[in-house]
Amino acid sequence: MSESVRIALLGCGVVGGAVARRLTQAKDEFEARVGRRLEIVGVAVRDTSKDRSDTGLDASLFTTDAEELVTRADLVIELMGGIDPSKSLLQKAIESGASVVTANKALLGQHGAELYELAEEHGADLYYEAAVAGAIPLIRPLRESLAGDSVQRVMGIVNGTTNFILDKMDRTGADLADVLAEAQELGYAEADPTADVEGHDAQAKAAILASLAFHTRVRTSDVAVEGIMSVTADDIRAARRIGCVIKLLAIAELVDKDGGQAVSVRVHPTLITRSHPLGSVRDAFNAVFVETELAGELMFYGRGAGGDPTASAVLGDVVQAARHKVHGGRGPGESAYANLPIEGVGAAKTAYFIRMDVQDKPGVLAAIAKTIGEQGVSIESMRQSVRRSQDGLATLHIITHRSSEADLAAVVEQLKAADEVDKVFSVLRVEGE
Amino acid sequence: MSESVRIALLGCGVVGGAVARRLTQAKDEFEARVGRRLEIVGVAVRDTSKDRSDTGLDASLFTTDAEELVTRADLVIELMGGIDPSKSLLQKAIESGASVVTANKALLGQHGAELYELAEEHGADLYYEAAVAGAIPLIRPLRESLAGDSVQRVMGIVNGTTNFILDKMDRTGADLADVLAEAQELGYAEADPTADVEGHDAQAKAAILASLAFHTRVRTSDVAVEGIMSVTADDIRAARRIGCVIKLLAIAELVDKDGGQAVSVRVHPTLITRSHPLGSVRDAFNAVFVETELAGELMFYGRGAGGDPTASAVLGDVVQAARHKVHGGRGPGESAYANLPIEGVGAAKTAYFIRMDVQDKPGVLAAIAKTIGEQGVSIESMRQSVRRSQDGLATLHIITHRSSEADLAAVVEQLKAADEVDKVFSVLRVEGE
Repeated sequence: MSESVRIALLGCGVVGGAVARRLTQAKDEFEARVGRRLEIVGVAVRDTSKDRSDTGLDASLFTTDAEELVTRADLVIELMGGIDPSKSLLQKAIESGASVVTANKALLGQHGAELYELAEEHGADLYYEAAVAGAIPLIRPLRESLAGDSVQRVMGIVNGTTNFILDKMDRTGADLADVLAEAQELGYAEADPTADVEGHDAQAKAAILASLAFHTRVRTSDVAVEGIMSVTADDIRAARRIGCVIKLLAIAELVDKDGGQAVSVRVHPTLITRSHPLGSVRDAFNAVFVETELAGELMFYGRGAGGDPTASAVLGDVVQAARHKVHGGRGPGESAYANLPIEGVGAAKTAYFIRMDVQDKPGVLAAIAKTIGEQGVSIESMRQSVRRSQDGLATLHIITHRSSEADLAAVVEQLKAADEVDKVFSVLRVEGE
Repeated sequence: MSESVRIALLGCGVVGGAVARRLTQAKDEFEARVGRRLEIVGVAVRDTSKDRSDTGLDASLFTTDAEELVTRADLVIELMGGIDPSKSLLQKAIESGASVVTANKALLGQHGAELYELAEEHGADLYYEAAVAGAIPLIRPLRESLAGDSVQRVMGIVNGTTNFILDKMDRTGADLADVLAEAQELGYAEADPTADVEGHDAQAKAAILASLAFHTRVRTSDVAVEGIMSVTADDIRAARRIGCVIKLLAIAELVDKDGGQAVSVRVHPTLITRSHPLGSVRDAFNAVFVETELAGELMFYGRGAGGDPTASAVLGDVVQAARHKVHGGRGPGESAYANLPIEGVGAAKTAYFIRMDVQDKPGVLAAIAKTIGEQGVSIESMRQSVRRSQDGLATLHIITHRSSEADLAAVVEQLKAADEVDKVFSVLRVEGE
């Protein structure tokens, strides 16, 4: 190894720029923390002609030849995103003896196991604190701090865009479309917001969290997903009326299966009480709530995105990996020994909130309660909240006790067909006490 | 090294018992996570005749000879507390080649630097996740995850007993003495609650947090401390009226000094707004709010005490230290390179909440505002909240802008002497927006 720890940066967008700036501005601090100087030996970008003088880096360091760059670094920081060419570049980096720090949730959610194996084979570190919940130290606590405990469940607000939208809807009563447009203007949502609002961003993060929490390989495709596009202002008002708020949660939990344990992972809009620690997470903040056998309830809260916050997580990993290069040692490898089966969303038992319009006449509630009970689902509460004389209908809110997705689907089918029911508007899952 | 990682446990109380139980019950999981079996080779206790069969350990493992025990272990877990003989036992353990995991905040707050030096000299690990905020992964995030960032301030609810008391006072309006008695009955407060209510427990934890956050040696004696005994039901009601709650906070922050930076660390009852993430921390929960240059605002939340929660933190450290014994590598050592000066509480600038009874007649508010302004302290808000015709007095609440402790002391002196003021009831610091 050379006199300094040689760092290659792949990508120099918002996060890459913040990482480069910090590495150049705080050289002495990094040296004190690592025990040797960190030196950026190159930055791979698509267009070297762009002005990047704000990074403090010499223009000669920018290159389009990422393939070559990764072979002359001790540490490769990948911030390009996407699968191709990130995957092959990281593979080449590891094969050339480098350790790797990445924020690439898509890559890890799909190909995490392959990368882990290659890193193991070459004695390289693979760190990715920034891949889930941005600045929040979460991966390291899960991989290391809770290594002597057993995680039972993880529930996280891991997508800032959708939390911004749902929080704003909650605070203003506005419709989703209007708030989404505002979020796009403010830069909280992208021009094409699909990955966020459809839940795909949260889906990849859920897979990573579940893998770590349950020592089991979970891929993005194992995660059931439902986005927020169908959440209406009426849903949010109805939730508010019962002391709840709607959040897009990534939920990974242990469930019973054939007398043993299995893992269930899903992303969907969820009603939780306002007094739950996740209930007061505002704006574009992220928070992850972890339930374990020994520690009980934990929560980690902070910014999930942005250049500087993400750079904080990346640089924490960089210091760790660099320390290992200088002083020896290795970060934790993949822990997949539990190898639990993965269950579809149908196996998880949740409580449900059903909102519908029903005929406003005597005997209707009893008939509906009977219909639900016949499917083996029990009711926690029924509330006829709005009576409207003009159309002879009333709005009814029902919260069920925990039941399976399959039983609930049967209930909804029956309700839709029932004479007493005019329309079922929404069915949302409920978590927390 | 032997076939297994040999573990010596010092102390077998609530936490020690939970650690022993978990290590015996989850043998296979620990082996999968460490790569080798963990074996408890002895447990040092004061009285070996006590029945400890619930730990799952053979009675022959219990010994009163801690001195001998620490010399035949790869890993020593210290859960006895106190300075003597914990300090000399851990020194002997390290000198005998063992790594050390401890939950002993008093020891670390007073002698952390010596232990670090000895560990460094002998290539041993020194871990202490459980010493601050019990189950909450906090030490590892500060030492490792934020290693590429710069912490600006740490504000923590790090004592569960006082949070239970203050929260209960807030929720019920009861007096401190009554709630303290209830807390003692429930086991949330000890028979002698001095260490908790006087803030000494939080003081040692504040020293540890400040050392890590600012890469500077901070000892318990460097931390200014004020307990909660003087907080009244009236104070809490007054705080509530302005949307605030009173919490005992451990605050460590960077302050300006002679054009450079210094560290200020203190523990005191503090008004914060209810909407602040720390404002909704209930019961005996702990939470630590961290502000950094890059990550921005982070919060870590969970249980601060109890057998199982504390065991979770201890065992996470045990897995780490054991992995290093098996696979090589070292945990982070002391990081004190910044070596900043430590300032007394007088250097910190805070806003203050002053509650007093004043004469209820025209011109009084103007006179009081003038008195305060003359000391160079500016007023954020004045609120005459209760007028009582019977005694001709009114209660006045003032919140100042940030000012120094010294200026505030002068203000309080002047107010006490002023004709318009009947009595100054309380002066509390205010944090957050």
